[in-house]
Amino acid sequence: MDKLTHALIAELGKLETTLHQKDFLLTWLEGDAHLRAVLLAAEILEDLYRQNVSTRVFTSGLAVSNFRDNSTRTRFSFASAASLLGLTPQDLDEGKSQIAHGETVRETATMISFLSEVIGIRDDMFIGEGHEYMKEVSASVEQGFQDGVLPQRPSVVNLQCDRDHPTQSMADLLHLAKVFGGLDALRGKRIAMSWAYSPSYGKPLSVPQGIITLMARFGMDVVLAHPEGYDLLPEPIAVAGMLAAASGGKFTRVHSMEEAFRGADVVYPKSWASFAVMQKRTELLRGGQSGQLQALEKEALAQNARHTAWECTEKLMGATKGGKALYMHCLPADISGVSCKQGEVAATVFERYRKDTYREASHKPFVIAAMMLLTRFAEPARILADLAKSKPPRRAV
Amino acid sequence: MDKLTHALIAELGKLETTLHQKDFLLTWLEGDAHLRAVLLAAEILEDLYRQNVSTRVFTSGLAVSNFRDNSTRTRFSFASAASLLGLTPQDLDEGKSQIAHGETVRETATMISFLSEVIGIRDDMFIGEGHEYMKEVSASVEQGFQDGVLPQRPSVVNLQCDRDHPTQSMADLLHLAKVFGGLDALRGKRIAMSWAYSPSYGKPLSVPQGIITLMARFGMDVVLAHPEGYDLLPEPIAVAGMLAAASGGKFTRVHSMEEAFRGADVVYPKSWASFAVMQKRTELLRGGQSGQLQALEKEALAQNARHTAWECTEKLMGATKGGKALYMHCLPADISGVSCKQGEVAATVFERYRKDTYREASHKPFVIAAMMLLTRFAEPARILADLAKSKPPRRAV
Amino acid sequence: MDKLTHALIAELGKLETTLHQKDFLLTWLEGDAHLRAVLLAAEILEDLYRQNVSTRVFTSGLAVSNFRDNSTRTRFSFASAASLLGLTPQDLDEGKSQIAHGETVRETATMISFLSEVIGIRDDMFIGEGHEYMKEVSASVEQGFQDGVLPQRPSVVNLQCDRDHPTQSMADLLHLAKVFGGLDALRGKRIAMSWAYSPSYGKPLSVPQGIITLMARFGMDVVLAHPEGYDLLPEPIAVAGMLAAASGGKFTRVHSMEEAFRGADVVYPKSWASFAVMQKRTELLRGGQSGQLQALEKEALAQNARHTAWECTEKLMGATKGGKALYMHCLPADISGVSCKQGEVAATVFERYRKDTYREASHKPFVIAAMMLLTRFAEPARILADLAKSKPPRRAV
Repeated sequence: MDKLTHALIAELGKLETTLHQKDFLLTWLEGDAHLRAVLLAAEILEDLYRQNVSTRVFTSGLAVSNFRDNSTRTRFSFASAASLLGLTPQDLDEGKSQIAHGETVRETATMISFLSEVIGIRDDMFIGEGHEYMKEVSASVEQGFQDGVLPQRPSVVNLQCDRDHPTQSMADLLHLAKVFGGLDALRGKRIAMSWAYSPSYGKPLSVPQGIITLMARFGMDVVLAHPEGYDLLPEPIAVAGMLAAASGGKFTRVHSMEEAFRGADVVYPKSWASFAVMQKRTELLRGGQSGQLQALEKEALAQNARHTAWECTEKLMGATKGGKALYMHCLPADISGVSCKQGEVAATVFERYRKDTYREASHKPFVIAAMMLLTRFAEPARILADLAKSKPPRRAV
Repeated sequence: MDKLTHALIAELGKLETTLHQKDFLLTWLEGDAHLRAVLLAAEILEDLYRQNVSTRVFTSGLAVSNFRDNSTRTRFSFASAASLLGLTPQDLDEGKSQIAHGETVRETATMISFLSEVIGIRDDMFIGEGHEYMKEVSASVEQGFQDGVLPQRPSVVNLQCDRDHPTQSMADLLHLAKVFGGLDALRGKRIAMSWAYSPSYGKPLSVPQGIITLMARFGMDVVLAHPEGYDLLPEPIAVAGMLAAASGGKFTRVHSMEEAFRGADVVYPKSWASFAVMQKRTELLRGGQSGQLQALEKEALAQNARHTAWECTEKLMGATKGGKALYMHCLPADISGVSCKQGEVAATVFERYRKDTYREASHKPFVIAAMMLLTRFAEPARILADLAKSKPPRRAV
Repeated sequence: MDKLTHALIAELGKLETTLHQKDFLLTWLEGDAHLRAVLLAAEILEDLYRQNVSTRVFTSGLAVSNFRDNSTRTRFSFASAASLLGLTPQDLDEGKSQIAHGETVRETATMISFLSEVIGIRDDMFIGEGHEYMKEVSASVEQGFQDGVLPQRPSVVNLQCDRDHPTQSMADLLHLAKVFGGLDALRGKRIAMSWAYSPSYGKPLSVPQGIITLMARFGMDVVLAHPEGYDLLPEPIAVAGMLAAASGGKFTRVHSMEEAFRGADVVYPKSWASFAVMQKRTELLRGGQSGQLQALEKEALAQNARHTAWECTEKLMGATKGGKALYMHCLPADISGVSCKQGEVAATVFERYRKDTYREASHKPFVIAAMMLLTRFAEPARILADLAKSKPPRRAV
């Protein structure tokens, strides 16, 4: 067994965590020990996987996913994490269920949880809704467990809501730690989280919100850049400021991609919807006025089109620290001349960093598995230590 | 290991059952020993689950589901049961298959069964069809096994047909046994299976049919109540009468919710479609006249609307035994002022019994797993005894 | 343990194969040893299954399927194979993914592969596309593995493309070997791969292409028959000729079902689209002219209708060797008077060989599992030998 793995397990064992039987909803609701524990557990699971050690800690049980928006990466990451730990992934397709009958969230949450260990939810379409929904599911299963209706209390894992996208931002953080040589090495490094132009509209705000809050917390010099009218939600903005202050990091806001990129160690150029557009859309949908959505979309695209200059070009990359900032993206990116006529990033820039973005994404299954492990077991470090010692093979040897 | 669990396993071992390599389609096709065996096995599986004993009796194999109607509860219960025993759930989505090509039932049934242990089917939309379809699937896999085409003969489990809903009624019976202190304690207890108003139309008849036949058989005083024109199928009505006579129970029919509730120990107020409407709908669909369905639905809803007084109110509950009858529902219920303007049950009544209905539902995964276990193994009690003795952990400890 | 199984494992161990970490795309890209290895491994897996020996060689990991066309048989065969080896089947439903955003094949392929062992693909709708797509997926995951982005390099298994349908043709070959007493017994046997009339249009060419190339290679006397205008792709035609020459078999082409059937030991009457129609359809779809598809379909059906005499009747069967040729079909067949008014085969003929066609199909899950095993493990024979020796039970005993 790799000595490094043992060291990581020992480090994990020293952290005091209280995630057992809890959820993972927003990174800023969790203490530092929890975030460090997730990163460590993810790294350990990656190590054990590569060393062909089985981490099948369950012989049965469901890992339920509820995707209220499209997903490839997160869907497969969630299923992979479930399989890695021995759970059976089961997707709740609301279209095939009886939920249309006016069933309450509490009831659905309970009904899918009798033998479930984890419930992963993506609900990122409407401002003010996704996180609230997850809290309602969480309260429902907690109540069901307290009432003795559920034999265990499944953990709710946020697979992207209107506020945060913790499985993405934690995978991004792990990527940064690996590239720069550890979490401590990130202190003072400048990361430009910048809006970028896209010919599509309605992309969630949760990725930039997740990035600015998490990276500010780990002492980075976070610069948020976007055109006028593309504000993020007030809460994560406030959180980013507070966490930067507490960590000795920085959080500044500018209205110029150039300014954000100047001297940056890391750039994260990505499109998102205008907050006002998202709110309007939410209101229209709530009011059943879906007929006016098309007009809204047209207007939003016209607004976007005024900012096509917000593209991550070679010239802009040249202005970063030594012209060599690390480019990041949650994927799929809108690549100019490849996936669209003009988009978030120049094709040559993306191509140069393509492998990096894939490596960035590769951590997500393990981050999700780490969240599952930490929320399901009281002594995750001891369980990992047992596996690292007994080395049950993951595949036949 | 819990002594009670060992006692239940011993009791199960004494029952003479012949479910091995057979199906579970209608409770009234099964002998008492089979029903008692399902209840016992379900209880044992629940016990072992709570004691963290793995009941993974398969290392591979499929548990196929075919939902021809929407489902949340049963879908997740089936997947949970499969996972609990070590099977891989696999849904047959007829829309994505080649079945539209005019493939025969026999062929489809065989093609999905080469490595399958169980086939769970929901087919409750058309009078005279669901049960017939299940029998055809059953005969097909039996033939395939006899012919040496299939290496094993999968069991067909009825997840709701036009006649019965045995995984629901058996879970309900287990709930009643737990609430009242055993199956024998149910003798003479009065249960009111009553129609209730719903603003939706077309709900299957299988739940009331399953309840009256099963509860009459266990000696309960079963009262069936519904407005004129909401008759159930003749077969289960006849069966309920015969089984009541044989068990020393009672089966009576009234046309008043008040009368049914008076002095009842248990009430089960639930909407169902008018039999005539269901038959008409079946004819229209068979004849390809789906254009006339809307008119039928309108007519049916108008018919329903004449019976909005059939609501389980506080006043009606007050007339039950000591005003404290147990309220039951298969869920989701149409709750007045919650999931609809006016429906099957008053919000305060439902809320008071909400936990009970969730507990009622919690038995379903284990009832389905019990049906799987009993139909797949010649000596289920011995296998459970082995597990209870060797105690393989379900999740890492 | 069955002595025969040990003998088969020993035989497999003698074959020099290099399938480890590779794909299985077209049978004619593989050496004889690879094809023999797949057949042997499939037989061994069948034996072990029937002897209740677990072949769970994985404790976790995904087996991803991507069905770009409908499927029942292959879908369930793939899921069964995955379950048999311990993998979690996970379907990539492109409609629920973010692929519409203009994501590249390389990116999607990488994103679904972080913990995946196998990717099974059906892509048979467009001439010139399916195989190319599979090669692109293959190159993508190879690159991802070389770059260190993927911890393992998943194998791509062709579940039907525009050129070949190897899991079908290999299952067919295994069936023939079992019926005639081994692969060597097939030398000189005459197989008529004949077009047959169907009232539907657009059936892929991959089955006849797979059959003529594979059976010619094993020394059979292959006769391909079809009406004018129903040519197969030039590549498999050329391959069949070359492989027949190399094997001492024969490959001839005729335009008469009667001629093909005369003296045949085996007949495989099956409809397929006219090559010209498929090409036209591909062009229309690529050019976004789906409005003209209806006209094309009408024209194609009219063309088909000129050849209703191409039906596998009793009279035609009477002309085969001793009137007793083995009838084969990949299913579902268009059976005259059963699944359509007039189709590929007379009802009495099909019924007489129905069991045979089911047996033919029964090998597919094991053939797919064999392809998975051989492409995932460097020493598959040794691993099977270990299992045959230690005999872990597949289901509780």
